Amino acid sequence: MASIDLNSDVGESFGRWTLGDDAAILRSVSSANVACGFHAGDPGVIRRTCRDAAAANVAVGAHVGYRDLAGFGRRFLDVAPVELADDVVYQLGALQALAAAEGARVRYVKPHGGLYNAIVHHTGQAQAVVDAVRAVDPGLPILGLPGSEVLRLAAAAGLRAVPEAFADRAYNPDGTLVSRSQPGAVLENPADVAEQVLRMATESSVRAVDGSLLKIQAESICVHGDSPGAVAMATAAKAALAGAGVTVSAFV
Amino acid sequence: MASIDLNSDVGESFGRWTLGDDAAILRSVSSANVACGFHAGDPGVIRRTCRDAAAANVAVGAHVGYRDLAGFGRRFLDVAPVELADDVVYQLGALQALAAAEGARVRYVKPHGGLYNAIVHHTGQAQAVVDAVRAVDPGLPILGLPGSEVLRLAAAAGLRAVPEAFADRAYNPDGTLVSRSQPGAVLENPADVAEQVLRMATESSVRAVDGSLLKIQAESICVHGDSPGAVAMATAAKAALAGAGVTVSAFV
Amino acid sequence: MASIDLNSDVGESFGRWTLGDDAAILRSVSSANVACGFHAGDPGVIRRTCRDAAAANVAVGAHVGYRDLAGFGRRFLDVAPVELADDVVYQLGALQALAAAEGARVRYVKPHGGLYNAIVHHTGQAQAVVDAVRAVDPGLPILGLPGSEVLRLAAAAGLRAVPEAFADRAYNPDGTLVSRSQPGAVLENPADVAEQVLRMATESSVRAVDGSLLKIQAESICVHGDSPGAVAMATAAKAALAGAGVTVSAFV
Amino acid sequence: MASIDLNSDVGESFGRWTLGDDAAILRSVSSANVACGFHAGDPGVIRRTCRDAAAANVAVGAHVGYRDLAGFGRRFLDVAPVELADDVVYQLGALQALAAAEGARVRYVKPHGGLYNAIVHHTGQAQAVVDAVRAVDPGLPILGLPGSEVLRLAAAAGLRAVPEAFADRAYNPDGTLVSRSQPGAVLENPADVAEQVLRMATESSVRAVDGSLLKIQAESICVHGDSPGAVAMATAAKAALAGAGVTVSAFV
Repeated sequence: MASIDLNSDVGESFGRWTLGDDAAILRSVSSANVACGFHAGDPGVIRRTCRDAAAANVAVGAHVGYRDLAGFGRRFLDVAPVELADDVVYQLGALQALAAAEGARVRYVKPHGGLYNAIVHHTGQAQAVVDAVRAVDPGLPILGLPGSEVLRLAAAAGLRAVPEAFADRAYNPDGTLVSRSQPGAVLENPADVAEQVLRMATESSVRAVDGSLLKIQAESICVHGDSPGAVAMATAAKAALAGAGVTVSAFV
Repeated sequence: MASIDLNSDVGESFGRWTLGDDAAILRSVSSANVACGFHAGDPGVIRRTCRDAAAANVAVGAHVGYRDLAGFGRRFLDVAPVELADDVVYQLGALQALAAAEGARVRYVKPHGGLYNAIVHHTGQAQAVVDAVRAVDPGLPILGLPGSEVLRLAAAAGLRAVPEAFADRAYNPDGTLVSRSQPGAVLENPADVAEQVLRMATESSVRAVDGSLLKIQAESICVHGDSPGAVAMATAAKAALAGAGVTVSAFV
Repeated sequence: MASIDLNSDVGESFGRWTLGDDAAILRSVSSANVACGFHAGDPGVIRRTCRDAAAANVAVGAHVGYRDLAGFGRRFLDVAPVELADDVVYQLGALQALAAAEGARVRYVKPHGGLYNAIVHHTGQAQAVVDAVRAVDPGLPILGLPGSEVLRLAAAAGLRAVPEAFADRAYNPDGTLVSRSQPGAVLENPADVAEQVLRMATESSVRAVDGSLLKIQAESICVHGDSPGAVAMATAAKAALAGAGVTVSAFV
Repeated sequence: MASIDLNSDVGESFGRWTLGDDAAILRSVSSANVACGFHAGDPGVIRRTCRDAAAANVAVGAHVGYRDLAGFGRRFLDVAPVELADDVVYQLGALQALAAAEGARVRYVKPHGGLYNAIVHHTGQAQAVVDAVRAVDPGLPILGLPGSEVLRLAAAAGLRAVPEAFADRAYNPDGTLVSRSQPGAVLENPADVAEQVLRMATESSVRAVDGSLLKIQAESICVHGDSPGAVAMATAAKAALAGAGVTVSAFV
């Protein structure tokens, strides 16, 4: 029986500020990218998120990011690789302890935002993330963009490199994502998202903006958690998969 | 053969800012209270400190503190106990991961500064620290002030509660510390410090400000690391102990 | 013709996190307590809030707070008065510049959260706030709790001390607020809030929880901005005042 | 009679951490680049620095930087220009208030570290700095690298653009600075620094690494404040100028 992993960002509240409807998202996905405090998530939020993920039988992943609360970790920061590696180890350890306090375990790593984007090409920062994961637990897979430096280096280091696809992003015919600056870059209709997810899961393909069909090898599909309509999209995706007999289950 | 533990605060640099002569301190003590990033210490500093402590065969302890970089964790913060517990778990986990990356292991917990002082009396915050330590590793001892709430609650929770004495603080006849607002509260002469440490280690006693001798049961003696003359004091203390045949070795 | 000032907290978003419906609140109040970055509000948020307040003809006030983003400034912080004064000057100056960039001017100061509560009784911190305001602009009034240390010291220093009442808080017969730990401490029905505001504005009185009528001398009434129903309450209060011919206008 | 401005970074301590010997530096320079809290400097440090600068008759400048305490503002941060402009306005206003509280006035702006370097070429961020300065006070000059985008845009916006030279940096024959990655990039001998400063001040020239003499039009010379030997260099430079009858005085 076919199965696919859906992952989404959660635990992004901070102190007085609430972001996303984590409870609803956790009912639709199988992997939870939990913020680790550097770009979002305070220790109380993180711990509660781990508890809720465990209760929902959702795998906890470390959503490590740049040290930039004001920018939500979305801005490139030219941190030296050696410092970045230590920042990642710190975040991983913090999450591990909070997860363990709730009977959960960190099962994978997914870099966040500006860091995620940087390590598609930035070899130094990509290697830093790989080094950090290896230093903490070489058994932790890294989730990233297909073809990215970080996945290449992770594999080279003997780590499991897990490529992901995006439920709500339009694809160019060459397999890259349509830039957010272009119209139509982000799918906003839950039915369209559900159709794309279903095709990714059942045909390992995606229909590009020019109508062509691309092969895509993704072990996980990212469902965004903090956009308007995020819950509706995740719910629609899960329902479409269920209708096709595809189980949503963690890749780890 | 007699032995005593000397502990000191290290890893208190942050980014561009250096504090203390950790390398020198690590040559004189057996336990290193390593800042965990909330009041001092960035991930790079923490990791290097763990590396240096391991190389010097010094036990690594978690110097957990309030989330207050600007105040160096010295100001009382009326954080709710449930949030404080999560803050402490977060710091402990972060330090564990950085220590493990250097082949070291966190072997005890010592609250820092304002938190240390608060949990002498503040039952809620003291219990929060105990809860956090128990959640992370019930085998971790807590170092604190003799007679403090935190040591009482740690023992009640089945944790090892380790009372400490202070190498450079004057004592009142009732065993409490002379307030820093009083003249003579802090010993500044390395010879005086060495004498006090030697008496604590060999006679389990301390000479109070009125000249009387007090019994004091301390399993560790705190040597301050960031004052002018800190290194001279730690060196003098270690030399005096060596002269009396007392080994400096970790309490854990 | 009678008039009263309604004040509310705004500008409390931070980076990726949105809090409150400032646009709606600014349509109902005459004074806007704008967060200054230490407990909430980033420079972009602050500037936009000043712009919107100016466009709505609402007076801009400085909502200064403790340096505690994680705690939203709600936790008591035992900061030394001399440091607190500098923290307040810093926040005031920052807000002044951002307001000026939008053609607005800071017209009063209202301490926030934990600081607001502390300086009801804490003489040292209250004096620090007064000193800071005087150092920046002795023409700036301070808004606070009737009978508080900060208003007493402000008046003693020659500053204008402005007592405020609370639209949605229940009052004890002695004029103090019913503690939030008691049931009924916070009014949740917009009609009740409107009635209380109207009585405060037209009769200078409030009906206490035991049914008795208290005299209350308030130059401003605080309408909370970030609770569920905040906008409904502010709207109801303004409508009730309008119905009674009372203008909502800034106290400054 | 000839005169030249010497500027140096001060006010870079933060909380418990001390950096630089500001008191000594203030005796040798005429312009003080005061950190504004985003990369260094807390409100207490900033205020005391303004007081000391005023007492030493040294002009106060705003050393605005990226929001990055952990990186000391030295790492490029890809902040959006509109957000950067607000960050700069915030810092300028905060410094203005603290300076005014000490009877001083902010007289110029010099971007710091990573921001300084970025706006040599980064048009968007350079324009943001210019916009911020103009929004706060169009009378404030901006100090920067000769030929930089920020000086070009400042001049285009009607601001005074002030090019500076570096007392302790080696120059390439084309007038650019020798990269710090090259040996000899930084002069370490106070006598060499003094000679370079004297030539800059009296001949408007500098001897490049190949021995050639370059013309250099600088209205201010930067003397680093936080390196080992910084005070010795500043003192030597001032003495050499005095010996040649050149007064050290602020460019503003």
